[in-house]
Amino acid sequence: MRTRDEACALDAADPLAPLRAQFTLPAGVIYLDGNSLGVLPTATPRRVQQVVAEEWGEGLIRSWNSAGWITLAQRVGDKIARLVGAGPGELVAADSTSVNLFKVLSAALSIAEADSPSHRVILSERSNFPTDLYIAESLAAQHGCTLELIDDADAIAPRLQRSDVAVLMLTHVNYRNGRMHDMAEVTAAAHAAGALSVWDLAHSAGAVPVDLRAAQADFAVGCGYKYLNGGPGAPAFVWAHPRHAERFWQPLSGWMGHAAPFEFTPDYRPAPGIARYLCGTPAVLAMAALECGVDTVLAAEPLGGMPALRAKSVALTRAFAALVASRCAGHGLTCVSPEADDRRGSQVCLAHPEIAYALVQALIARGVIGDFRAGDGTRSDSSPDILRFGFTPLYTRFVDVWDAVEHLAQVLARGEWRDPRFHQKSAVT
Amino acid sequence: MRTRDEACALDAADPLAPLRAQFTLPAGVIYLDGNSLGVLPTATPRRVQQVVAEEWGEGLIRSWNSAGWITLAQRVGDKIARLVGAGPGELVAADSTSVNLFKVLSAALSIAEADSPSHRVILSERSNFPTDLYIAESLAAQHGCTLELIDDADAIAPRLQRSDVAVLMLTHVNYRNGRMHDMAEVTAAAHAAGALSVWDLAHSAGAVPVDLRAAQADFAVGCGYKYLNGGPGAPAFVWAHPRHAERFWQPLSGWMGHAAPFEFTPDYRPAPGIARYLCGTPAVLAMAALECGVDTVLAAEPLGGMPALRAKSVALTRAFAALVASRCAGHGLTCVSPEADDRRGSQVCLAHPEIAYALVQALIARGVIGDFRAGDGTRSDSSPDILRFGFTPLYTRFVDVWDAVEHLAQVLARGEWRDPRFHQKSAVT
Repeated sequence: MRTRDEACALDAADPLAPLRAQFTLPAGVIYLDGNSLGVLPTATPRRVQQVVAEEWGEGLIRSWNSAGWITLAQRVGDKIARLVGAGPGELVAADSTSVNLFKVLSAALSIAEADSPSHRVILSERSNFPTDLYIAESLAAQHGCTLELIDDADAIAPRLQRSDVAVLMLTHVNYRNGRMHDMAEVTAAAHAAGALSVWDLAHSAGAVPVDLRAAQADFAVGCGYKYLNGGPGAPAFVWAHPRHAERFWQPLSGWMGHAAPFEFTPDYRPAPGIARYLCGTPAVLAMAALECGVDTVLAAEPLGGMPALRAKSVALTRAFAALVASRCAGHGLTCVSPEADDRRGSQVCLAHPEIAYALVQALIARGVIGDFRAGDGTRSDSSPDILRFGFTPLYTRFVDVWDAVEHLAQVLARGEWRDPRFHQKSAVT
Repeated sequence: MRTRDEACALDAADPLAPLRAQFTLPAGVIYLDGNSLGVLPTATPRRVQQVVAEEWGEGLIRSWNSAGWITLAQRVGDKIARLVGAGPGELVAADSTSVNLFKVLSAALSIAEADSPSHRVILSERSNFPTDLYIAESLAAQHGCTLELIDDADAIAPRLQRSDVAVLMLTHVNYRNGRMHDMAEVTAAAHAAGALSVWDLAHSAGAVPVDLRAAQADFAVGCGYKYLNGGPGAPAFVWAHPRHAERFWQPLSGWMGHAAPFEFTPDYRPAPGIARYLCGTPAVLAMAALECGVDTVLAAEPLGGMPALRAKSVALTRAFAALVASRCAGHGLTCVSPEADDRRGSQVCLAHPEIAYALVQALIARGVIGDFRAGDGTRSDSSPDILRFGFTPLYTRFVDVWDAVEHLAQVLARGEWRDPRFHQKSAVT
């Protein structure tokens, strides 16, 4: 891809190109932040309106039966299951990723306490998404375990061999640099060391092929509002391998996880299977939007599904990294995402030691939306300030890649990042 | 209220009558189930559409700042605070009631463990809403406490005097029979016995005056989709008295409860005040609908606010109970809600030993929507099968009360409940 015409030719030849018509994209925007918040599916406003005006407004309480609200968590869950290699009835949509992680990590620790009581370590990466670490910190204290954080992903397998790890908790695709674990290989290493695996699929579901069953993973959670396009704060999802699902209660034993919620019995009796990982009443409006979002990904199934989306995603990220290298050289930017295609998720991150924040702001002013993630000098991995760009093959075109790099090259060449307004920090960066 | 004309005259003289125009009620329906799911505010569809199409669709990730998503939990929380006697900055909207109860009950148990370690009992009522008991059961097991359930509300104060109760966890207004506790009196009894109080306001917020601060309550949670009209599965809310808010972490230590969520530090540092009771990303669409619902209750403020709503609610429930007694006698119905106005929430429940379910279905077929709650022969309080009717003074009229009883009288007189289709149970009753 050496010219804009070549980019346009790639789009013209792209069998997935029609999928973009499923989305309402703002004019004048190149959106490379679907890894933070997916764009609005065109079907969503009407569907949400229908749920609000008809199911709620007209149906009122009757819609629990007539509109199927009571099985919404399972219906949407079964659709997500198809994207992550889980079977029907094995996955539910509910709550937030953090809350779901609390459920599965609690269950995993309880299983470990029963099966391998000498294993007292929760192992994760210091670069894991912070909320995962906060939840693990809380549960480690509660269970009297140690949370141990590794700085280098290559150190995970050797560390496991000390045979004291109860649970290996990882995010499949790293939220900062886009580095992707080999789920099957890492899970096998965990199992060989007597540890369970808990996977966060926040940056994987809908972005890269995932096969939880084939990988023999133990537990997984994921996010509804990134590559699943479910809308801001969409419900998350939770999966437990059937061999574990019924072994323990998870501690958030709310009524929707009861075997018979409408019997209103005073004693908790967990539902069979994954339904016991539900807690409170489902967020019906948010679930309707999530379902529309998931449907946009499922629409790729006749066109090759996740493998086809992945092939396009790899081509997009590879092209972006190559163009930045060739057209933005000499300005201090380095690519911190893996070069190897099979180790890179659907994003590319560029580091800059001084002006990462201002560069992101200058790009946003030009309509190219990525995001900034601050580095942390106190971390032993010395993570740098980064510019983060996500590529959603459902709606991102090759010409968007070309144009985004062209904008970045101009921002650098013209020194646009010097503008003082690009240095003012907002509440959310 | 002895004639339909008298009912109409009461409506004509009702200063709160204009508040009904805030709602979109289905034609041909008398809705007496706002204690299960509040009706749709007329403002909600447009506002939700705006959030979907503009804030999400156009603003995308920028709306965290430009649309104030980042402080949505606090903004909506501050509005709810005005309805329950909490101060600004003391209450947040988030998650589900069950999840929020898990947070505050965990915190209360931690405080009790520190301050009065010999107190090892969580005391509640067997007739409490089941999800509250399930969450308490889970936390009792985790903390090595005993969950003790009382059958008779009058036995609570004597039981407290044994001075081993760590936390008294009650629902302010009982979900089945509408019996209301005196929050200040019960809290004082708990404190005198060295116990903390946790209040579930699911059937109180927006229905009856609540003054958490004046009652010296310790913790509270509540529901967004009943009398707050926030829509099916709306976010719930959580409050901690400022004297407790910062004493402990709650265990669901997600990133939105971090002191600086966008610093992405690997270590949890809880936010000051009630913000540490947040966990995951706020459900923006659902929160927008909740805000519209809360606004419908706040609209009563210039008309006398909660005390005025309460006066009308008492008049509605009193009239309903009196009309049922006079016009439906001889069919085996008994009123199981308290006769004393100051002990009755905003609902009236009728028991019938055999045909409660069929009566509710026959009424629904006539457009009078209440709900059925099964009794439980195994409970020591021998709770009977009930017909449950909620009265929301924002939109329920005196003529609705009159007409609902007229329908019930006809269903009974004509034996309409014998129709076999009124005996078929649905998934949700």
